[in-house]
Amino acid sequence: MKVVIIGGVAGGASAAARLRRLNEQAEIIVLERTGFVSYANCGLPYYVGGVICDKNKLTLQTPQSFYSRFNIEVRVRQEALSIDPAAKTVLVRRLEDGSEYTETYDKLILSPGAKAVRPALPGVDDPRILTLRTVEDAYQIQNYLEEKKPRHAVVVGGGFIGLEMAENLLHTGISVTLLQRSAQVMPSLDFDMACQVHAYLRSKGVDLRTFSPVRCYEGTQKSVRVLLESGEAIETDLVILGVGVEPDSHLARDAGLELGAKGSIVVNGRMETSVPDIYAVGDAVEIRHAVSGSKSLISLAGPANKQGRIAANNICGLNSTYDGAMGSTVIKLFDMTVASTGLNEKMAKAAGMAYDRVVTYSASHATYYPGATNLTLKTLFLPENGAVIGAQIVGFEGVDKRIDVMATAIQSGATAEDLEELDLAYAPPYSSAKDPVNMAGFVIENVRKGLVKQFHWTDLKDLFSRRDIILLDVRNEDEFQNGHIPHAVNIPLDALRSRLGELDKGRSVYVNCFSALRSYIACRILSQNGFDCYNFSGGYRFYDLIAGENGFDASPTHPCGVKL
Amino acid sequence: MKVVIIGGVAGGASAAARLRRLNEQAEIIVLERTGFVSYANCGLPYYVGGVICDKNKLTLQTPQSFYSRFNIEVRVRQEALSIDPAAKTVLVRRLEDGSEYTETYDKLILSPGAKAVRPALPGVDDPRILTLRTVEDAYQIQNYLEEKKPRHAVVVGGGFIGLEMAENLLHTGISVTLLQRSAQVMPSLDFDMACQVHAYLRSKGVDLRTFSPVRCYEGTQKSVRVLLESGEAIETDLVILGVGVEPDSHLARDAGLELGAKGSIVVNGRMETSVPDIYAVGDAVEIRHAVSGSKSLISLAGPANKQGRIAANNICGLNSTYDGAMGSTVIKLFDMTVASTGLNEKMAKAAGMAYDRVVTYSASHATYYPGATNLTLKTLFLPENGAVIGAQIVGFEGVDKRIDVMATAIQSGATAEDLEELDLAYAPPYSSAKDPVNMAGFVIENVRKGLVKQFHWTDLKDLFSRRDIILLDVRNEDEFQNGHIPHAVNIPLDALRSRLGELDKGRSVYVNCFSALRSYIACRILSQNGFDCYNFSGGYRFYDLIAGENGFDASPTHPCGVKL
Repeated sequence: MKVVIIGGVAGGASAAARLRRLNEQAEIIVLERTGFVSYANCGLPYYVGGVICDKNKLTLQTPQSFYSRFNIEVRVRQEALSIDPAAKTVLVRRLEDGSEYTETYDKLILSPGAKAVRPALPGVDDPRILTLRTVEDAYQIQNYLEEKKPRHAVVVGGGFIGLEMAENLLHTGISVTLLQRSAQVMPSLDFDMACQVHAYLRSKGVDLRTFSPVRCYEGTQKSVRVLLESGEAIETDLVILGVGVEPDSHLARDAGLELGAKGSIVVNGRMETSVPDIYAVGDAVEIRHAVSGSKSLISLAGPANKQGRIAANNICGLNSTYDGAMGSTVIKLFDMTVASTGLNEKMAKAAGMAYDRVVTYSASHATYYPGATNLTLKTLFLPENGAVIGAQIVGFEGVDKRIDVMATAIQSGATAEDLEELDLAYAPPYSSAKDPVNMAGFVIENVRKGLVKQFHWTDLKDLFSRRDIILLDVRNEDEFQNGHIPHAVNIPLDALRSRLGELDKGRSVYVNCFSALRSYIACRILSQNGFDCYNFSGGYRFYDLIAGENGFDASPTHPCGVKL
Repeated sequence: MKVVIIGGVAGGASAAARLRRLNEQAEIIVLERTGFVSYANCGLPYYVGGVICDKNKLTLQTPQSFYSRFNIEVRVRQEALSIDPAAKTVLVRRLEDGSEYTETYDKLILSPGAKAVRPALPGVDDPRILTLRTVEDAYQIQNYLEEKKPRHAVVVGGGFIGLEMAENLLHTGISVTLLQRSAQVMPSLDFDMACQVHAYLRSKGVDLRTFSPVRCYEGTQKSVRVLLESGEAIETDLVILGVGVEPDSHLARDAGLELGAKGSIVVNGRMETSVPDIYAVGDAVEIRHAVSGSKSLISLAGPANKQGRIAANNICGLNSTYDGAMGSTVIKLFDMTVASTGLNEKMAKAAGMAYDRVVTYSASHATYYPGATNLTLKTLFLPENGAVIGAQIVGFEGVDKRIDVMATAIQSGATAEDLEELDLAYAPPYSSAKDPVNMAGFVIENVRKGLVKQFHWTDLKDLFSRRDIILLDVRNEDEFQNGHIPHAVNIPLDALRSRLGELDKGRSVYVNCFSALRSYIACRILSQNGFDCYNFSGGYRFYDLIAGENGFDASPTHPCGVKL
């Protein structure tokens, strides 16, 4: 058996190694367009930033190591030009000298990945406007930094690469302006969760500008002028484009393979394409979202590696099925960790799901043990059965842990009751006896059982215009004086029982505190005393971050003018 | 409704607060024998060690705060003496003045906890022999340290409290001898996993002595002499007993409640005891192990808190059931983290389960990103269906995360295939594209599918005596020269394909490398070339830790004389 693999990173490299372990006799050839195989593409921003100092760490595997360890032939700097599925051949060009040859295959695995999008804007071809996808890209940026010593950079796009590049450029001492065309960075988060990221990025010195699409670029000898749709212009020494990726599926398209969303390659659960003996894996394939079931493009290393292994299994006669991805992500931003799994509100709405959500604010570990920080956890669930469908977390310590627990729970079909019951490992340096994930379960079940009704920041606009309700803040007086929701009145929680008479039972009470914990207790007191009451999800601190955003007008008349 | 709660820590405090949130009208009385309510008992060793400097952090909740926030009456320094279930009364003594009174209840919740075991050895009543369970105990030890400035301490028992006290005493500059009567510390681990903990404790300066039961204590004016069964004597300034806890169930027993294992209180899933209107929660109750289904005593804060909440739910008419605990644990030892969940080998054997296990050694995050450390993960599973039944992890960064992922997976009934498919969040600072948990799944499935056969360190004794087998070490020559398993021959993996002729096909080949990764590849090469071969689980590094243990005679004639 002869297997040809197009693309030697992540999915392709995983497939190759697994193939060899399963079949010692197969002939395995990997065609890789770049000069490197199985390189650390998720590490590239950190190489640029000097966090990873040693160039060789990015490229621990080499064609030589693949050969000596796995008896696999890796042909770098060789590009597959076309596939002939009938003849079962691939036309290959050696990039060194431009010569071409035809390679036969019994089985073909496509792992072409995705390519960085370069919007066709005027001036975008300026050599100081760069993208980051390959080792060569990283070397190019690094060389530019060393030779030209830029003092300012514009990063366009607040996705993973854009954010990691912003951090890493700042790390090398370069000032960074981050341009985001929409209301928020990190599309994996909902807007309200992204607000904390915005505030943090700004506190770290990133000049973040939302609602700032680029109109064009103008290169001068000295600099690049980035012109925004708003008419504003930014002079800079370097532009990094991080506006997304698209499947590099031209080979598949030209060979007549069925394509799906955004030009991705359609595969079944066995990672087989529509054409016999051709498999596809990685960033270029359309996969099933494990929660919504919808066809998705999820360009992440974890799924790519698993798919490569599964394709190899099936080629070697082990029956293996890929059941889809959760889209679990995590990113480090300076000391902050931001993570998500499953569906966010935008995705749940798109899937037509009748979801609800809770926002909890929990300590990363027992507060009496030094070093605890708080994390904000937003959990989406289905009210009808309590099924948990997604989670987003913003915080510092322990965020990566909780997102993996949530991913595991959601992937196993957990309900909120299951979250309540999770027996997680507790010791003061690591967690609390009621872990943040347990807490999310408790709050969801309180909502589902009708023990408390919630309201959300998006309801404030309507509430501000109503005169038949009470906005009640149950924090202490000094907290209230330092800032509060417009029109709110203050009765500290511990005084509430004795001051119930001050509240008009004819009016619904909308209660907030700092994090929604005291206000929940207040709601329990109020509802058992005959009040119709609602707990403000996320609390004042969550509101305060959102209200500080560009596009959010906090005045009582237009409180929620956020364009999402 | 009037609810009396005996015991105001963890389970009792959780129950009280939940009761109030569910029922604003109930009269709620908490009787607490110590002077403190809802205190941070898991933090006590860290207070002794000065990690938690502020005394008040241990006792953030007070009777006053319980009253003002929850309208709950906490009576500290009041001990329940007896219960009259027929009359529904509790006889209470005020410890301040010895006066007694009778309190009535409609519902009673017992949360008496467990008490530190004090073995009845001669001399054990010396005032310099202390235990740690309550805030008062912590104050007593701390006062002793300040007044007497001990230079050496003996800690008896290598469970959680013993180990945390050893670390914290060392942290204050005191030399520590840790006496363990059996072969290993941390009974939640199997012996082989504990060996790495032993080596680490010793490297940190703990004078750890296994197989060292105490015969008696002799107090002199200057010191305490600890006499071991071996005849050896240790002079010390302070002894901390950490030899375990037992349910404090005398009230329940005297009231005629049904008792279970080790004097624990029998409850059903609703946390109801055998007597109507009496509930019990926390360290004193017998619960179901969620994996084995066996009756267990699991004295941990997480389960106690959940049980308190469930008892309160049921008292207030919300139907709530406790489904049992996984026994998930985690402990910090200096910079090391040690954790476990579900069943270990000892427990699986006791439950009569036909289990198997894999030992994997994975980086905490991408190795090309700075700061990665390795963790050892032992995963137990059922070969028949791949069900994962337990995990133990020893390492540094990321151990707490992986144990919680494992706990979540196991509690949801995951199989090894589920572990393979878990879509965990990956970025270089946090994980690898194939997370250590995924890797465990891969290895288990390789074993279950027959791609590789394993052998374990416990098999070495037999293997050393056989002349019909080959012990093959596939590490590089320099690694081999630095130490290897007796009788092993060396063929580095990358040379194996070309040197297959050196091996006799008539003999089974037992292959090892450093961590079992290269030896797995070697096994795949060998088996496809017609060899009967076995991969050494855990690799040389795992063996080397075990072979260095007291009780393990590494000579070829008696390789495995470990008393377990």
